[in-house]
Amino acid sequence: MIKDATLSKVAEKLREARDIVILPHINADGDALGAALALALALRNMDKEVDVLLEEEVPSNLDFLPGQELIKKNPQKSYHVALNIDNGDITRLGLREPYFHGADIKLSIDHHATNKVEAHYSYIDIKASATGEIVYDLILTYLGGSLNKDIALCLYTAIVTDTGGFRYTNTTPRTLEIGAELLKYDIDFPYVIKKVFDMVSHTKLFLMKQTMNSLRLLEQGKLAISYITYEDIKALPAKNDDFEGLVNIGRNLMGVEVSLFLREDPKGHFRGNLRSNNYVDVSKIAEKFNGGGHKRAAGFNREGELEDVIAQLTDAILPELRREG
Amino acid sequence: MIKDATLSKVAEKLREARDIVILPHINADGDALGAALALALALRNMDKEVDVLLEEEVPSNLDFLPGQELIKKNPQKSYHVALNIDNGDITRLGLREPYFHGADIKLSIDHHATNKVEAHYSYIDIKASATGEIVYDLILTYLGGSLNKDIALCLYTAIVTDTGGFRYTNTTPRTLEIGAELLKYDIDFPYVIKKVFDMVSHTKLFLMKQTMNSLRLLEQGKLAISYITYEDIKALPAKNDDFEGLVNIGRNLMGVEVSLFLREDPKGHFRGNLRSNNYVDVSKIAEKFNGGGHKRAAGFNREGELEDVIAQLTDAILPELRREG
Repeated sequence: MIKDATLSKVAEKLREARDIVILPHINADGDALGAALALALALRNMDKEVDVLLEEEVPSNLDFLPGQELIKKNPQKSYHVALNIDNGDITRLGLREPYFHGADIKLSIDHHATNKVEAHYSYIDIKASATGEIVYDLILTYLGGSLNKDIALCLYTAIVTDTGGFRYTNTTPRTLEIGAELLKYDIDFPYVIKKVFDMVSHTKLFLMKQTMNSLRLLEQGKLAISYITYEDIKALPAKNDDFEGLVNIGRNLMGVEVSLFLREDPKGHFRGNLRSNNYVDVSKIAEKFNGGGHKRAAGFNREGELEDVIAQLTDAILPELRREG
Repeated sequence: MIKDATLSKVAEKLREARDIVILPHINADGDALGAALALALALRNMDKEVDVLLEEEVPSNLDFLPGQELIKKNPQKSYHVALNIDNGDITRLGLREPYFHGADIKLSIDHHATNKVEAHYSYIDIKASATGEIVYDLILTYLGGSLNKDIALCLYTAIVTDTGGFRYTNTTPRTLEIGAELLKYDIDFPYVIKKVFDMVSHTKLFLMKQTMNSLRLLEQGKLAISYITYEDIKALPAKNDDFEGLVNIGRNLMGVEVSLFLREDPKGHFRGNLRSNNYVDVSKIAEKFNGGGHKRAAGFNREGELEDVIAQLTDAILPELRREG
C-alpha cells in the first residue's frame, strides 16, 4: 500500500508523543467509540500513555467494548498530543474542547466529507466506510502496531455501526476484506450485531407499534400511510432519533410503492416523511408542500388536521402512483 | 488452494457433460436459487447446454436474479448430467426427482450436515456458509470459469441469504473475503438486502403488530410475554414460516432476559417459544413442560386456557430469572 503523507505524519506524531488524548464526538456511537478504543488499545500495547475522554457514560448498547479502562472523564491535566476522531466539527467535543486546543500537537482523523476541523495534521478519507476502517490501516500499516482480539472487536463494532452491518452503499470490497481479517480473531460478532442492531428501546417499540396500528393502505396496497400523533407520545421520552426508520415500516411492506409517515409536534403541526421503492419521485411531491429531498426519500412540514393533511398528500401522491407500476 | 478430489470430479463431469440439469430443492430460497443460477450462467459462458428446473414461480423477493432465462418447468427430455444443489434430501426435488434419477451422471453439492443424497459424486462442505460459497470456488478454482456482474449478483444473494447478511455464526473470514470479491463487480447489493431482508408480507406485518400489541412485561421488564391467538389469525393465510422470529420482538427489548411467545393452534393448544439473552437456561424451563431445546432457545407444547398457560410458565420462569441479573 502506498502510504498517505498526512496519515504517516499522524502516525509519526502519535509514535513520538509523550502522552495522548483521544477525543470522539459527544454521544459517541459505535464507530466513534470503537475506533477510539481500538486505537487506544493498540497505542497502549506500543507502551504509549493514552487516555480516551468521554463526558457521558458508555451507552448500554456498547457496554461490551473492551478498553473501557482507558476512558477518563475530566482529568486535571493537559496532553502533548490530542487526536480528534470521527468528528467533523470541533465544537462537538463539548466540554472536552479545551483538551484539544490545549495540546502541543493537534491531530484529526475522520471519514466525513463535511469535516472542517483545523489541526496540525488532519486526515480525511471519505471513501472509508467508517473511521474504524482508517484506524485499521493506521495501526497496521502506519504505526507498525498489531491487532488482538479486543482491538478486532472494537474495529468490527466501528465498521458494522457505520455500514449497517455491511449493508449500506458505503460498504466497499475493502470494508469486507477488513471484516474478514477481523473475524480471524475469533470475535463474538453475532453478539455485536445483537447489541448494535437488534436491541430496541421501550420507546422505539411503542412507536413501531403505534405506526403499525395506524397503518392504512390505499390504491391496491401501493400507498401506505401511517402516523404518530402528539397524544400518542406526549408521555414518552421520545427523541428525534426514535422516529428514524418508522416510515420504512410502510415502505417495506410488499406491494407498497410510496410510504407516507406523519408525526405531530406539540403545536399540532405535522412533519412528513415520504419514501418510494421503484418509480415515484417523492421529492416532487414534497416540493408541492414546500419540502424537498431525493427521488426515493423526501420530507416536508404541514399544518392542519391529521385527516386533512392525509387527504392533501393522498391527492398529490395518487397521480404519481398511477403513472406506472 | 488445495483442490478437493470430489469437487474436482464434479467439475470434470460438468465440463464433459453433453447437457446439464441443475436441480435446487422445492421452494428454493436465495441460496438454492442464487447458487443454481450462478453456476448455470457460468457454465453457459463456457458454452455448456444447461437448464435450471423449478416447479414453482420464482418468489417475488428473488425476482431480480439474473439468469432466469435458463429456468425451465417441465422439459420433455432427459439429461446427460444432473446436479442436485443445496438439497440434502432427494425427495425434496418434488416432481423433478425423475430428472435426477434419469441422468447418466448424478452429481450433488451442498453445505448441510444432514445431507443424505446418493450421487456418483457428492460434495458436502459443512464449513461453507452457503452453497453459493461452494459454487464460487467451483466456478473459479475447479471449472476454470470466470465471474461477471450477473453471476456475482446471484452468488452475493446466495451468501447473504444463508448468513443473514454476514450476521449468523456460520459467517467465516472466507465468507467475507468472497463477499469482497463479489462487490468488485459493482453489484447493487443494497437492493438485494432490501429484497431479501427488509420486505415484509402483509401477513407478517399483521403478526408482528399483534405480537407487539399483546406484549406484557413482568419482573421489572426482565420477562416479556406475547402471544397470537387462533382468533387473531384464522382468517389469514399464515404459514409456519410467518411466525418465525416473533419471539425475538420481546427478546430484543432492552432489559429483557427471557421472552415467551405463545401461538394457539386451531385446536386451542399452544406452541410456546422461549428465548433468553444472558443467563437463564430456557431449555430447563421447556423441559418442565415436556419440551426442550438449548440454553438460549427452547420450545414446548401446552394445552389449556391462554391465561392459565401464561401463569404456569411465569411461575416456572420467575425463580430462574431471580437467580442472577
